[in-house]
Parts: sequence; C-alpha cells; structure tokens
Amino acid sequence: MGPGDLSAALAPLPLRADPRLLVGRETFDDAGVFAVAEDLALVQTVDFFAPIVDEPYAFGRVAAANALSDVYAMGGEPITALNIAAFPVGKLPLSVLTDILRGGQDAVHEAGALIVGGHTVTDDEIKYGLAVTGRADPRRLLTNAAARPGDVLVLTKPLGTGLVATAVKRGIARTGDEAAAVASMSRLNRDASRAALAVGVRCATDVTGFGLLGHALHVARASRVTLAFDVATLPVLPGAREAWTAGARTGGAERNSTFVEDSVTWDTVDEPSRALCVDPQTSGGLLVAVPAAAVADYLSRVDGAVVVGEVRPRGTHALEVR
Amino acid sequence: MGPGDLSAALAPLPLRADPRLLVGRETFDDAGVFAVAEDLALVQTVDFFAPIVDEPYAFGRVAAANALSDVYAMGGEPITALNIAAFPVGKLPLSVLTDILRGGQDAVHEAGALIVGGHTVTDDEIKYGLAVTGRADPRRLLTNAAARPGDVLVLTKPLGTGLVATAVKRGIARTGDEAAAVASMSRLNRDASRAALAVGVRCATDVTGFGLLGHALHVARASRVTLAFDVATLPVLPGAREAWTAGARTGGAERNSTFVEDSVTWDTVDEPSRALCVDPQTSGGLLVAVPAAAVADYLSRVDGAVVVGEVRPRGTHALEVR
Repeated sequence: MGPGDLSAALAPLPLRADPRLLVGRETFDDAGVFAVAEDLALVQTVDFFAPIVDEPYAFGRVAAANALSDVYAMGGEPITALNIAAFPVGKLPLSVLTDILRGGQDAVHEAGALIVGGHTVTDDEIKYGLAVTGRADPRRLLTNAAARPGDVLVLTKPLGTGLVATAVKRGIARTGDEAAAVASMSRLNRDASRAALAVGVRCATDVTGFGLLGHALHVARASRVTLAFDVATLPVLPGAREAWTAGARTGGAERNSTFVEDSVTWDTVDEPSRALCVDPQTSGGLLVAVPAAAVADYLSRVDGAVVVGEVRPRGTHALEVR
Repeated sequence: MGPGDLSAALAPLPLRADPRLLVGRETFDDAGVFAVAEDLALVQTVDFFAPIVDEPYAFGRVAAANALSDVYAMGGEPITALNIAAFPVGKLPLSVLTDILRGGQDAVHEAGALIVGGHTVTDDEIKYGLAVTGRADPRRLLTNAAARPGDVLVLTKPLGTGLVATAVKRGIARTGDEAAAVASMSRLNRDASRAALAVGVRCATDVTGFGLLGHALHVARASRVTLAFDVATLPVLPGAREAWTAGARTGGAERNSTFVEDSVTWDTVDEPSRALCVDPQTSGGLLVAVPAAAVADYLSRVDGAVVVGEVRPRGTHALEVR
C-alpha cells in the first residue's frame, strides 16, 4: 500500500501519548520502541509481501532478513518472531509453504532469534513475512532523528534490488544477476547494526520500499539536516544499471520520485543513477550517519560498507545529490 | 487454514530447543512464551481474518479482542500490538480501513496496550488482525498442560458465534441476535484472566476456531486428563440454537467434529447441543480449570462465567459430554 493512502487512512486515528512508547509512528522510524524496564526496550515491526523471487526457500529467507532488518536499524537484537503467511491451499503443494517457512526460520535462527508462533490464511496469492521483536538498550537506540552535521553517510549494501527483480520477471536479466541480488537481500544487517552501536553511532535507517532517497528524507526531516549524496560512490548490484537501460521500471520508483521531488536538488546526475536513488529496495542495507572520527573504524567492521555522502546543516533542500 | 494442512506444512521444520522458550508450538497453546528475565516473560501471538461482521468498526474491535485473548489465555497483560491489514485500495473508500483500525485501536487501548506499528497490503479481500505482545510472570502462566483431576471447568462467554454469524450472512438471523454476538465478541477476556491468576488457577485456554471441544482436547492431551462437560449448563448466545434449527452450518464445525470424533463419548446429547460444542468461535471466552475450593471466588469475579463441567483422571476418552 502506498505511503499516501496509508497516511490518509491513519490520519484520523488519535495518537496516544505514553511515556513507555520511546519511538512511535510520528518520525517514520523503522520500528516501534516500547520501554519495559530502565535497561530494556522492545523493538517491534511487522512486514510481509508477495514473492519477489521464484524460489520458495530464497523468498522466505529474503522476507525474514527484510523484517529482521527493521530491528537492526533501531539498534536492537531480534529475540522472537511470528510467521505471517497466506497460501493457496489446494492449488500449490504444501511443500512450497514448508520451503518458504524453512527459509524464514533459517534467517531467524541465524539472527539468534526464535519463531514462537504464527498465523496462515488461505488466499489466492502467496504472501509471507514476520512480526519481529527485538531487545535494545533504550539509552542506545539508532533513530532517524539523530543525524548531526559533519556525520558521514555510509551505506552497507548495494542498491538495485527492484531493478534486478523486475528484469528477472521480464526475462531480461543476465545470468548471475538474480543470484547476486538474492545473496545481498538474504544477508542480515546484524553486523552493520552492532558495529554502529560499537563505534558510537546514534542514527541509522534501513533502505527498503521508499528507496535510498525516500528513507534519507525521513532522516533529514526527523534530524532537521540536509543529506548530501555523491552518486559516483553509490554501491550498485551487478545488472541493475543494465536492467534500467533495458527498460526495467517499477511503480514503486515512480511513487518514490514523487515523494521526494520537492525535497531534492540534482546536480548533473544521469538518469540510471537517479533511478537507483529511488529504486524500491527489499532487504536493503543500513544507511548510517557515522561521526567523522569513527568512519574508518566502522568501515573496517562491516563488509561492503561504503561512504556515500555526508550530513550538512539544513540547506534549502533536505536532500542534495551530485 | 485447517489444522491438518498446517500441521503437514510445519512438520518437516526442525524445532529449536531453547531454555528461554517457555511455551512453544508443541502443546498447541494459545501463544508463545519467551523468557527475557527471571520475572518477565513475553507472551506473543498473531491472528487476522476476513470480516465476520459487516460493520467495519465492530469488525476491528472483534478482531482485536480475539487477538488480545490469546495473551489473556496465557495469563499475560497485553502491552503492545502491531496492525496487520489487507485492503482493496481503490475499490472501497479508505474510511472503511480507518474505521476497522479505529475499532482495533479502541480495543487495544481498553486493554491498556499500545499499537506500535503495522503493515497494510493491497488485496482483493479485507483482512485484519494483530500481532500482540503481553508481559507475564513466568512463574504464574496459564497453560494447557496444568489441568488437574478435581478442577472445575468454567466457561466465561456463551457459545454460538459461528452459528449466529452464518445465520446473519444467510439473512435468517433474528433482530438483535447479531448485536448480542458482537457485544460478546467485543468483550475482552481481561477480567477472566486476571481473576484466574488471583484465585490460583494454572490452566486456561481461549475458545476460538476449534470450538469448545477442539480446545478442550488440546487441554486434555497436554494435561493427560479427561474433560467432562454437561451440555445442559453450557451458556449459549441468543439465536444460536435457532440458527442451527434454521439450517445454519459451517465448514469449521465439520472440521472440528472430525478433529475430535475419536476422542469424545457422547451420552444422549441432542444435535443442536453437539453443534454448539464444535461451533468455531471468534473471540470466545476462556475455558478455565479452577481448583474446586476457588470456584465460588472465581465466579464472583467474572461476569458471565458459568460452571460447565469438571476435570477427571484420564479415562478411555479424553472428552466426555452428557
């Protein structure tokens, strides 16, 4: 469901102020954070969607890595998960559902968490995802609202999962491109999250459906800063630029472009790079605002992490891309 | 999804032993229970389904009361919830979704909990429910496995929501019957749960999709006892028997009959009473095994609670109905 419709549906509902709710829906953070003790907060999120890859086990793994990522993006460690599934009983063998659930369970176990329950409904279209609970120290959360001018922006996974998945669906992907995308989407953001806490980072988000710029805009607004990106440095999945050149397009990218268009200045950025900046990601990396003194330390701890820009005092636009 | 298909899909998945998982899927309990500290366990559950009443606000309230009930059935107090929704965007006004979410939110707030997030997908059919987290004292849980011979069985809400809802759909319900069913399904099982803990009860379950006997069978098996019911004492919603007489039938009741048939002896029980015993309930009451000395105290604390049978040493059958 698009962000516009969702905001319209939620707007009339009263927010309930509660001191235990440390992070609610106001800042568009990745998960809700609820304090249960002075040193213990629950980080909670739910996400599920239709298959973006054909292979059931891979889909389950990617869907789980994607749901777990919201907990990592807040500085939490996943502890439990509940399966959420829709499946066309009688039309597909039950082994397909088993394989999806196995993929999800393997990712949850890799995260050190347990599946404690679930609910499955009969439906025409497969859907799968999880409600995930993590634990965090309420004094050491990673939020959208804590980016500071001078921080360096680091992205921990390559962009382009939307473009590659579209190319695969249209049969125009190159051999190996899907496997690289699945491997990236299956990777947990655990190291990226733990390293952030270890080096003193306070601000992170994960890059998912709204694309790099959509999530960056949430950070810029919540932190009242400008985020500046250099597209020459953006990590990109193999085949993603080629997919764009071959004509791969997504409705999500179009919605994301519209969402950010009034907030961004573009300085001679070519079309495929612009497309990557708004490409909707599944199980994307963390976008982390790292204090300049800690950048080298952070990069040394996180495989694939790349400097992609910097945080500046709020300028005329919330986002600058060159 | 039926219990048979679900078991088949889950069976190949390895269970992971973990001392923090106090209640997992083995005993068919109402929710998973995960220990986070010596005096704090998380009770977690997820449930969502298609509308069983037409009015969106009432549907949201019933769906939330139903999901919250799994936490109460384990002796937990709900603290947080995540919305799970599917909605036909563009085909129905967004205000319908808002009303469903408002109904859910009102029930969650009545329970003293907060909605900390959610996920909504576009789908042809409306679905709504919640993933709920409660807190409980791990030393004072209510489980399926703790019924003792001599305990008295108490049911806290009337049976018949499946029959009445079917009669409403078929246009054969009497005026007022739907309102009575909605009122019952909207009621939280909070008082029933708190009173159970207060008087020293150790065993409870909530009566939902598997019907009174289906859930009773889970208790009988987990506790290695026989549960004996007297149908003359069963509380019944107004219009439920009439709905059966007028021809209301459900696929759920048929599946529940099959599920329990080898485990139950019937002693001159009329057909409509048998139907009520397997009628699939939405947001039904708690079935509580109360130590005999505490029954009067328990009944005085819970509106609508009725003695419906007793726990006996394991006989030839797990369930006896007369």
